[in-house]
Amino acid sequence: MEIDLNADLGEGFGPWRMGDDEALLDVLSSANIACGFHAGDPVIMERTVESALAKGVDVGAHVGFPDLQGFGRRVMRIDPGEIAAMVTYQLGALAGIARSVGHRMTHMSFHGALGNMTAADDALADRLVEAVARFDRDLIIVSSTSHAIETAAACHGLRVATTFLADRACDAAGLLVPRGLPGAVIHDEAMVLQRVRRLLREGIVLAHDGQPLAMRPDSILVHGDTPGAVSLARAIRREIEAADGRVVPVSRMAAFQVAT
Amino acid sequence: MEIDLNADLGEGFGPWRMGDDEALLDVLSSANIACGFHAGDPVIMERTVESALAKGVDVGAHVGFPDLQGFGRRVMRIDPGEIAAMVTYQLGALAGIARSVGHRMTHMSFHGALGNMTAADDALADRLVEAVARFDRDLIIVSSTSHAIETAAACHGLRVATTFLADRACDAAGLLVPRGLPGAVIHDEAMVLQRVRRLLREGIVLAHDGQPLAMRPDSILVHGDTPGAVSLARAIRREIEAADGRVVPVSRMAAFQVAT
Amino acid sequence: MEIDLNADLGEGFGPWRMGDDEALLDVLSSANIACGFHAGDPVIMERTVESALAKGVDVGAHVGFPDLQGFGRRVMRIDPGEIAAMVTYQLGALAGIARSVGHRMTHMSFHGALGNMTAADDALADRLVEAVARFDRDLIIVSSTSHAIETAAACHGLRVATTFLADRACDAAGLLVPRGLPGAVIHDEAMVLQRVRRLLREGIVLAHDGQPLAMRPDSILVHGDTPGAVSLARAIRREIEAADGRVVPVSRMAAFQVAT
Amino acid sequence: MEIDLNADLGEGFGPWRMGDDEALLDVLSSANIACGFHAGDPVIMERTVESALAKGVDVGAHVGFPDLQGFGRRVMRIDPGEIAAMVTYQLGALAGIARSVGHRMTHMSFHGALGNMTAADDALADRLVEAVARFDRDLIIVSSTSHAIETAAACHGLRVATTFLADRACDAAGLLVPRGLPGAVIHDEAMVLQRVRRLLREGIVLAHDGQPLAMRPDSILVHGDTPGAVSLARAIRREIEAADGRVVPVSRMAAFQVAT
Repeated sequence: MEIDLNADLGEGFGPWRMGDDEALLDVLSSANIACGFHAGDPVIMERTVESALAKGVDVGAHVGFPDLQGFGRRVMRIDPGEIAAMVTYQLGALAGIARSVGHRMTHMSFHGALGNMTAADDALADRLVEAVARFDRDLIIVSSTSHAIETAAACHGLRVATTFLADRACDAAGLLVPRGLPGAVIHDEAMVLQRVRRLLREGIVLAHDGQPLAMRPDSILVHGDTPGAVSLARAIRREIEAADGRVVPVSRMAAFQVAT
Repeated sequence: MEIDLNADLGEGFGPWRMGDDEALLDVLSSANIACGFHAGDPVIMERTVESALAKGVDVGAHVGFPDLQGFGRRVMRIDPGEIAAMVTYQLGALAGIARSVGHRMTHMSFHGALGNMTAADDALADRLVEAVARFDRDLIIVSSTSHAIETAAACHGLRVATTFLADRACDAAGLLVPRGLPGAVIHDEAMVLQRVRRLLREGIVLAHDGQPLAMRPDSILVHGDTPGAVSLARAIRREIEAADGRVVPVSRMAAFQVAT
Repeated sequence: MEIDLNADLGEGFGPWRMGDDEALLDVLSSANIACGFHAGDPVIMERTVESALAKGVDVGAHVGFPDLQGFGRRVMRIDPGEIAAMVTYQLGALAGIARSVGHRMTHMSFHGALGNMTAADDALADRLVEAVARFDRDLIIVSSTSHAIETAAACHGLRVATTFLADRACDAAGLLVPRGLPGAVIHDEAMVLQRVRRLLREGIVLAHDGQPLAMRPDSILVHGDTPGAVSLARAIRREIEAADGRVVPVSRMAAFQVAT
Repeated sequence: MEIDLNADLGEGFGPWRMGDDEALLDVLSSANIACGFHAGDPVIMERTVESALAKGVDVGAHVGFPDLQGFGRRVMRIDPGEIAAMVTYQLGALAGIARSVGHRMTHMSFHGALGNMTAADDALADRLVEAVARFDRDLIIVSSTSHAIETAAACHGLRVATTFLADRACDAAGLLVPRGLPGAVIHDEAMVLQRVRRLLREGIVLAHDGQPLAMRPDSILVHGDTPGAVSLARAIRREIEAADGRVVPVSRMAAFQVAT
């Protein structure tokens, strides 16, 4: 079994930091890097990509709304065509930095409110996934379960890697339960690990309502900005290895190889 | 004789516009497009690149300081390595947008205070030109006369196209006279055209002190944000054609072809 | 009859301008000045307030969402308590500039998406009007017809001046028809003037559906950023004077005097 | 002996925090609060002022350059008149927030690169201190030793409280040694406390070159963003009390009472 272990990194800005990126990069196989809109700046992006390169970690663009103050978590009603231009801009910026330091951008994902809106809106997903395809048809979209994104990706010829948010509850359809609801975020490390273990060994997750849900994600996402994130990431990695799994970035999985 | 006619475009932001980009794109052979730091935003960048593509105009990145309010014209003392990351970010963003609409970024230039500082500072020029080279060794740097930039480009294997600012006075060494000084900006259209004519026919420009100065620029730059910019650009184009010259983007000039 | 003639001014940013503020200030009795969030910056704010002072025009704060790129016209879902802090910040900034140049801030209004949301949401209106009251109980809120804002103002002891948007259609309840709908913005100057004339002489406006609607606004708002704004403002002023009206800022109307 | 103990607070932005403001507010007598230009946002400003009010701590505006990414530590060459407008804007914003929560802004200080430039440039100091005076003649300027600021304050009728930076070396004239130089920042807590002790008991500080320097500051500044800041602040407070001193905000010192 191959599975990717990833986290959202580079979420500082200017003098401010969020999470212990260096320690996480020792544990992850891929990183989603903020591109300056909801977090991140050129200096932080460059350092994070350089460090990822040194540690053999894949990098992808984590694109969001232009809202540093709200960390991209506030809904903004923007014309889809304009959001598409913002997505392209962010993809280009990170790809440029990756290229200049000798690394390669392999994937992308949608952050925060933009991610929630895209996952739930067919038209928006279509427009944004098309923007990704026009930028680079080889990019892999990393997303939690979303019919809208999966359909759009199929339509535009892009590959989607499904990611499992270890510390977030999902409903019976596999969709994330909104952050505001009770039980949406699972704070107890033991419970998070138990979920990961059952997922890895049985392919089953208990949904928010307690019902078992079959799931075979390509990736497990750890939230880097929560206390204990590094130890949690290490524990999840041990779970994977104890289940005879291998932590591998999506771009190097057999299932994601592009036929040539 | 082949010469490029270019201008700085896409210098609006959000609801604000500067200059008549559409009319200028009918006259120019190449455009330097603001990348969101001193002006420009993803939507404006995309529209400007699309329009340039439709009109057969080359596009390049016009990179500047992160200072919308000051339009990149205020000196900022930033660590050269940090500026280099900002340059890469902007190059990537515009290249990404160009790629997504099916165009190609052929060149770059430095804007405003960043341009003045880079042209006059060997160490800064070296650091930033190196950043350009690490991003894409095929990019052409478009710059007014600058020993610092030319030396750095030679060192890092990049080509420089020299541009002549038709409405700006230069000193005996060909360097721009600072904007604040009397006579630095030439407002009289007839005088600007006369300078262009002599340059094209004799290869001579009168410096600020009245002395003749030999100059063979690859490009003539028109300031798009001044009143009368469009009619001036058209008049310059007529001067070029009257002198049996051809308006051609730098990337298509024989002198700038990359040996393959 | 006394009526206020106002417009939204200071809507430039950095190097960019919008509308001919100087010419409008010769015609208006009060101005709503952008405070740096959706438009405006300290330099533009200061110059606009100085000019208003010199021409005897009242100034108020035009507060909006923190979204220069979207000009405050994009909905942002922000916690009401956080918006309240943003409103206070903007009120303080403009009041500070007014005080430092010897002028006085007499009123405030909500801009763009924030204005639409506040006018239609009782809870948000209550929270934001409370913020205005906590800042300065003497400020007059200038607003188009809104039950939510009027109720909140009554509750928190603030005065509301109703403004009539001369070039915007309203529905049978007097509420603005959303910008996107056909006929929402009235572009024909003659028709705008006819509306103003009937309003002034009969106290009647034809709603979007053609039904007559009784209205006695304290103020008429001209959009300063549309072509022809200055000549329209002059024409409206002539209409007012031809109807024996006097153009007077709200703060100096008998009906708005604070009992002492 | 009365002495003020202060620190720069509210230096987060959006989701990011810097320093433990709550713990420091239990120890300080006054706080300099970032106003949204180099750090801070309306929400953080409001919470910090509310907490200061609850704990009886004075608040002042800590004004800086409009450069969040550089934390206001990068020199920006801006026209002094434009900086003056930015200073007024920030003073107004914090004063507005203080007023709306029932607190009062008693002082102001200049942050980072703006502080260094103002302290060393007579013309700039004159222009900015004049802006402070035009905003509110009762504000106290809190500053480390600066002839430029003291002269300007005398000229414009403002009071200056001199502050001693406990962990920063000064030269023979009492001016701060630039941050980049060796020994400029004193990291050893015991050494910092020894400096404070000698200052309090003998009125003497050892300058960077080892020479004793007479100094009678009104205030001691602790840097809130360094590790150990809270314990250092507590230790300094104990030193003051052990020397029979009283920690009192400048606004309540006898020497700073405005004659009425």
